[in-house]
Amino acid sequence: MFIHRHKVQFYETDLMGIVHHSNYLRFFEGARVEWAHARGILDYQEPGSASHLAVFESQVKHLKPTFFGDELGVAVQGRREGNRIIFEYRLYGRNNEICAVGKTVHVPLGLDLKLIRIPADIKAVLEKEQWTETWL
Amino acid sequence: MFIHRHKVQFYETDLMGIVHHSNYLRFFEGARVEWAHARGILDYQEPGSASHLAVFESQVKHLKPTFFGDELGVAVQGRREGNRIIFEYRLYGRNNEICAVGKTVHVPLGLDLKLIRIPADIKAVLEKEQWTETWL
Amino acid sequence: MFIHRHKVQFYETDLMGIVHHSNYLRFFEGARVEWAHARGILDYQEPGSASHLAVFESQVKHLKPTFFGDELGVAVQGRREGNRIIFEYRLYGRNNEICAVGKTVHVPLGLDLKLIRIPADIKAVLEKEQWTETWL
Amino acid sequence: MFIHRHKVQFYETDLMGIVHHSNYLRFFEGARVEWAHARGILDYQEPGSASHLAVFESQVKHLKPTFFGDELGVAVQGRREGNRIIFEYRLYGRNNEICAVGKTVHVPLGLDLKLIRIPADIKAVLEKEQWTETWL
Repeated sequence: MFIHRHKVQFYETDLMGIVHHSNYLRFFEGARVEWAHARGILDYQEPGSASHLAVFESQVKHLKPTFFGDELGVAVQGRREGNRIIFEYRLYGRNNEICAVGKTVHVPLGLDLKLIRIPADIKAVLEKEQWTETWL
Repeated sequence: MFIHRHKVQFYETDLMGIVHHSNYLRFFEGARVEWAHARGILDYQEPGSASHLAVFESQVKHLKPTFFGDELGVAVQGRREGNRIIFEYRLYGRNNEICAVGKTVHVPLGLDLKLIRIPADIKAVLEKEQWTETWL
Repeated sequence: MFIHRHKVQFYETDLMGIVHHSNYLRFFEGARVEWAHARGILDYQEPGSASHLAVFESQVKHLKPTFFGDELGVAVQGRREGNRIIFEYRLYGRNNEICAVGKTVHVPLGLDLKLIRIPADIKAVLEKEQWTETWL
Repeated sequence: MFIHRHKVQFYETDLMGIVHHSNYLRFFEGARVEWAHARGILDYQEPGSASHLAVFESQVKHLKPTFFGDELGVAVQGRREGNRIIFEYRLYGRNNEICAVGKTVHVPLGLDLKLIRIPADIKAVLEKEQWTETWL
């Protein structure tokens, strides 16, 4: 299981004293990007790389709040579904409890923001990934 | 229909030249907060007010990208479902096209972040709201 | 005096219950962009426009905190200094009190992020601007 | 020299393809918070701790842009000046080049946002810190 680490920053909190919910999509992105880089399908210097897997849909479900200074772990798994790519996330907070789960659906876009086919190297990577059906 | 206006800021864009997807949850929040204030159930100075309708679930579906300088309109509708509150959103961009739709589910929390019952004034407001079933 | 209006959003607060200081640079940018658009030197659709007045230096001084729901006014004035452009800001909060002042220094960059000369149309606009020396 | 590490996230970029300037104040905060935690004067769970060293002034000077995926290093040094605390920052980007320098001035606030005296433990820590006068 691929795990991305993130320490909650002061500026990610809101006046309720907890992490603002919009940041969870950013934590998921952090996990997805690190995963894609680890798999060799995202080159930070190359704008036509996997950074162009545009977000088509996102879902987040919050189970417990997270707090300033928490050391989060974001587990991620990905698979292909036709010309879309699905990622699922589990976000672990204090005491390793699951604080949020989520899902994003992506479509590959060219530099002109038009739909393309999923590149072969990304397809190949996704075929080798493990996927647990009942994860969320 | 309640419409919140937001002009896309430079800092809301990302290196693909479009609005970063995490900002849509912020635009939805802007609409929800303005709606709650207009209905008299959110007092900005009062921490125990509707700002404590914590986000339990969120969903966003992106249909078209939005861009720097776009004058967005975010339509919002809300209803109660037991002890939860549901909001649905339509985000209009250039040429008044629907660029995104979304939904958030909220639970009322006390200042100690523990679940409470939906306050009577919020209930009363929601009973008078119109709700279109097939909106998204 | 050019004034940009901004209503403080929930997501702009932090766990101290006030607006996070990094947002002030965003409020200043909002004022600067709106000013440039009003003066006809920023075209939102054109990446080679005044959006490329890159920030070289910034300074903010906080006098009073600002809060969720505050209706801020950000006054801005600009002038040229050789090949640089200086903007100064006054941020008004509740009861029209000055809550922050600031300054940004900009250099014109081409699309390749290399230094260019200030375009003639921007120069012409700045020559007509009023500048109050003892503003901050 | 205390160094805080930060990997540039996709959502920290803007449509110019570089890190948005407002994020540098967030990177500085990340360094300052980590420094304070390492020195034992910031307890993440305790709202009356050093998180209440409110930002009074900030300055940033940008020397080179930073980019998506860059592994930043933020060096920080702090000292006391009467009832204020000064932090200075050097931000290192690609090839270990200095991309930005900055300074923040802080005042200690109580939970009611009123000025207090710098707590003795923070004073003691700052007296032991090294300070290089010509750092920026």
